[in-house]
Amino acid sequence: MRMAHLVTNCSFSPSPAVKAPSGSTSYCRNVVLQSSKSLFSKSCSLKQRKSYVTRASAAVQGQTQTPLTSSQESSGHSSSKAKKVMVIGGDGYCGWATALHLSNKGYEVAIVDNLVRRLFDHQLGLDSLTPITSIQDRVRRWKALTGKTIQLYIGDICDFEFLSEGFKSFEPDAAVHFGEQRSAPYSMIDRSRAVYTQHNNVIGTLNVLFAIKEYCEECHLVKLGTMGEYGTPNIDIEEGFITITHNGRTDTLPYPKQASSFYHLSKVHDSHNIAFTCKAWGIRATDLNQGVVYGLRTDETAMHEELSNRFDYDGVFGTALNRFCVQAAVGHPLTVYGKGGQTRGYLDIRDTVQCVELAIANPAKPGEFRVFNQFTEQFSVNDLAKLVTAAGAKLGLDVQTKSVPNPRVEAEEHYYNAKHTKLIELGLVPHLLSDSLLDSVLNFAIQYKDRVDTTQIMPSVSWKKIGAKPRTVSV
Amino acid sequence: MRMAHLVTNCSFSPSPAVKAPSGSTSYCRNVVLQSSKSLFSKSCSLKQRKSYVTRASAAVQGQTQTPLTSSQESSGHSSSKAKKVMVIGGDGYCGWATALHLSNKGYEVAIVDNLVRRLFDHQLGLDSLTPITSIQDRVRRWKALTGKTIQLYIGDICDFEFLSEGFKSFEPDAAVHFGEQRSAPYSMIDRSRAVYTQHNNVIGTLNVLFAIKEYCEECHLVKLGTMGEYGTPNIDIEEGFITITHNGRTDTLPYPKQASSFYHLSKVHDSHNIAFTCKAWGIRATDLNQGVVYGLRTDETAMHEELSNRFDYDGVFGTALNRFCVQAAVGHPLTVYGKGGQTRGYLDIRDTVQCVELAIANPAKPGEFRVFNQFTEQFSVNDLAKLVTAAGAKLGLDVQTKSVPNPRVEAEEHYYNAKHTKLIELGLVPHLLSDSLLDSVLNFAIQYKDRVDTTQIMPSVSWKKIGAKPRTVSV
Repeated sequence: MRMAHLVTNCSFSPSPAVKAPSGSTSYCRNVVLQSSKSLFSKSCSLKQRKSYVTRASAAVQGQTQTPLTSSQESSGHSSSKAKKVMVIGGDGYCGWATALHLSNKGYEVAIVDNLVRRLFDHQLGLDSLTPITSIQDRVRRWKALTGKTIQLYIGDICDFEFLSEGFKSFEPDAAVHFGEQRSAPYSMIDRSRAVYTQHNNVIGTLNVLFAIKEYCEECHLVKLGTMGEYGTPNIDIEEGFITITHNGRTDTLPYPKQASSFYHLSKVHDSHNIAFTCKAWGIRATDLNQGVVYGLRTDETAMHEELSNRFDYDGVFGTALNRFCVQAAVGHPLTVYGKGGQTRGYLDIRDTVQCVELAIANPAKPGEFRVFNQFTEQFSVNDLAKLVTAAGAKLGLDVQTKSVPNPRVEAEEHYYNAKHTKLIELGLVPHLLSDSLLDSVLNFAIQYKDRVDTTQIMPSVSWKKIGAKPRTVSV
Repeated sequence: MRMAHLVTNCSFSPSPAVKAPSGSTSYCRNVVLQSSKSLFSKSCSLKQRKSYVTRASAAVQGQTQTPLTSSQESSGHSSSKAKKVMVIGGDGYCGWATALHLSNKGYEVAIVDNLVRRLFDHQLGLDSLTPITSIQDRVRRWKALTGKTIQLYIGDICDFEFLSEGFKSFEPDAAVHFGEQRSAPYSMIDRSRAVYTQHNNVIGTLNVLFAIKEYCEECHLVKLGTMGEYGTPNIDIEEGFITITHNGRTDTLPYPKQASSFYHLSKVHDSHNIAFTCKAWGIRATDLNQGVVYGLRTDETAMHEELSNRFDYDGVFGTALNRFCVQAAVGHPLTVYGKGGQTRGYLDIRDTVQCVELAIANPAKPGEFRVFNQFTEQFSVNDLAKLVTAAGAKLGLDVQTKSVPNPRVEAEEHYYNAKHTKLIELGLVPHLLSDSLLDSVLNFAIQYKDRVDTTQIMPSVSWKKIGAKPRTVSV
């Protein structure tokens, strides 16, 4: 995946040579737009400004433009609001919803994605419950509906040459990094997927850190971590750090990490790497330790079916609650893994986009490594099954639950109490599950139930049986 | 580095076709030695025993052989003594000394190494203070002196096909893993070296874990970590875990990690990955969080100049005390970075080999992730400078000290009190620096002072100035 094409709508361009037909997609790489320098915010250091910066899409006529001069011009003002946001992994479940939300809120957005999540579906024989259109059609539809342009950089962030060009040409004030292999079961399929997950996630994030240091040192990194980094300790989970008094001395240290899949471990590695670069280089970073996301509809994805988000219910990429709703819709018993006492933090995807915006609007200071626990409510798997059963009953569904052998290695009964106040303090107003379940998730599952492939529902990946040999057939 | 040649001395072989001249090196790959199955310990699972296992060197005539049947035959006996030890990275500073020591103690040893440490010297224009011979000459000399065979597997553990063949043919009872890029400054030269370090170390260790799971599930992993994983917290450093009471509840959790280079971070990542596989798969592992090693001579390397160990004094690979001794020997001021209050754990290389042997002889239980802090004494950099100055004076050297700007990002004055009792409890008898300095390190530096390249002494790598662009010239 070493393509590094800038795909964008070039309706504003300096020469006929790059003028594209209205509504079409063109390749605008290497367009010289010197005049753009005066138009946009510049948080990147002066040394990086080069004449080949591509800015064809940034001043689309008729677009509701964000303010053209950032208050970060003089740099170092951590409270200044970012204007240009790079959404890495912006074609994925959380990334697409976030990209649209930020664009709608007036940020200038560029999506960086190698689209490999779509490839995983092909390789594993999976599909989103909801039909989704190509990323090119998505951003064209968004433009047609709102007049807002989302730039596309299609390529792999593990390819530093590609990533560098993206940072140099877009000059982001903030980079939201969703661009990782994000499934625990995927990382536990076989050795090659375990290695792929850690390589892709760790090296991709290292490259983002180096790109910020080299090209946009004021850029605020908003990195998606996971609540799974903490595991299930027998003490309260704090937000990133814990103050420990030991043998009469006291220090505030990184909260101990106990991740339980190669995917979750990759996020732990990222967190350590990012924390180091904040200290050593003065990177400003927010690590969003996100809970399990549920839901489909956001204000923006609901505008048009071509903007619809993906919705995964399979045993590899489906998050617990989404999977339960699909199971309820098609009359499949809810599959509780083991005893069902596994407790985690959950949040509505409408809160994911809200949290990311809050983090961007209230950036970390230079050198600060900030950790927010990004979830709104805690539930055990058994709690979820009961909620879905009750909600299903109101819709006339007879929902059954069955326990299946737990494919994971995890505590099935444990203490769990995780703090999550920092985003609330910044203004997060949560959507609660009890309100969302009937309004949104379960009804969507029913709407699309004819698209359900019931062979994909059961767990297909075992933590203990993972082998060194590649599993080349569909799981 | 995708070679996967088994290089060994084939003085015992089943057919004239692979009979090698006495003392020569032959390529014995694909030799079929079915009869060897009855001769050696078998901790590997039966399913992995294949007819193409290569065992040409394992029953060398006249060799003082370790017991041929391991008590681990029936598996699960954690107290049984390992007989066959794979030393990954066995051509390096600690690895070579360890391989010889274990061979001398009666273990059957195989070295796995891609020799890339030698390549780094070529690329950076560095060299060991002591002349070292090729790995092939080293093991030939060892055989000639002692009658003991050390098998060689030359290849890259990031190449899983190569590593698999090594595990399947050698069937180790223990794997000592030194096979990582081990220099903090090297990892901070440029982006490509940072990425190389984390990729090489993390993926290499993942491959070792998968090889153990797939082919030798009883094999005890003895992994070299570093005291640098802990950083310099303001509380006592425990051995791997800390019991925390928080809001009225108590748990014992992994000690918080605060590494301060991409190299040290790679070790943190390894530790988390290993801990997970112990829990999920039942891997037995010991993480040796080693301090800074000094010294050159061990009982085995002292037997012959062709067995001499490497000794690094340069700004990239030289450890602090070794560098100071060389500086004293050639009349170069001791280069204290910054204030010199940086305090770390130190140990003599004779204790490194002793500690590894103790860990192997007292293996972790299946599923146990055990952490030992492997050092014997704590010193600040200023302490070291004073000790070398005093020792130099006894040898008639006028030793000066100067502070140079600290190329690293680290606290220069801090609390430091790290526990290190577990290896003592297993029987470690430390060599203390005050005794070793004159006897060994400083005298060696004087002996070889004509080989010193003074241009390599000063720090050449800056933590803050590391860039994305490759540094292709000598540092």
